[in-house]
Amino acid sequence: MPAFRIVIMLKPGVLDAAGQAVQQGLDALGYDVQSVRVGKVIEINASGATPEAVDDMCARFLANPLIETWRIEEPAGATGGGA
Amino acid sequence: MPAFRIVIMLKPGVLDAAGQAVQQGLDALGYDVQSVRVGKVIEINASGATPEAVDDMCARFLANPLIETWRIEEPAGATGGGA
Repeated sequence: MPAFRIVIMLKPGVLDAAGQAVQQGLDALGYDVQSVRVGKVIEINASGATPEAVDDMCARFLANPLIETWRIEEPAGATGGGA
Repeated sequence: MPAFRIVIMLKPGVLDAAGQAVQQGLDALGYDVQSVRVGKVIEINASGATPEAVDDMCARFLANPLIETWRIEEPAGATGGGA
């Protein structure tokens, strides 16, 4: 079953309020962080879907092409981190 | 300047309401999708930060270790997709 990971980020130059909030939080905790951008990741299992079909989903529904860019990737294997 | 990409997903078994909503939306548009999981991606530029420090940020602030897992990656290069 084809699996895809879509990473959706705001375009450079578009105000990323969430990123600024995260940066301020990290600053308050004492971390030295120059910039933070926050985006979405969508993992899709779709039988028979091609990368072209997934790109179509992004353009039609998942992303806002006016202010966002997306990248379609193979999802990484086992999830690391976490407790 | 070290750059990191953090991918935060809900743990398997935790209800992903956003993922279900996306799946229903894709179904309504006629796409055949078996499962969708929605998560967050955070791109950080931090001078001198080590992967261990970024993991610490995740555990303390960026993620909820009770219900989320995270993975720390090198960010991909130029952003594809988008208009």
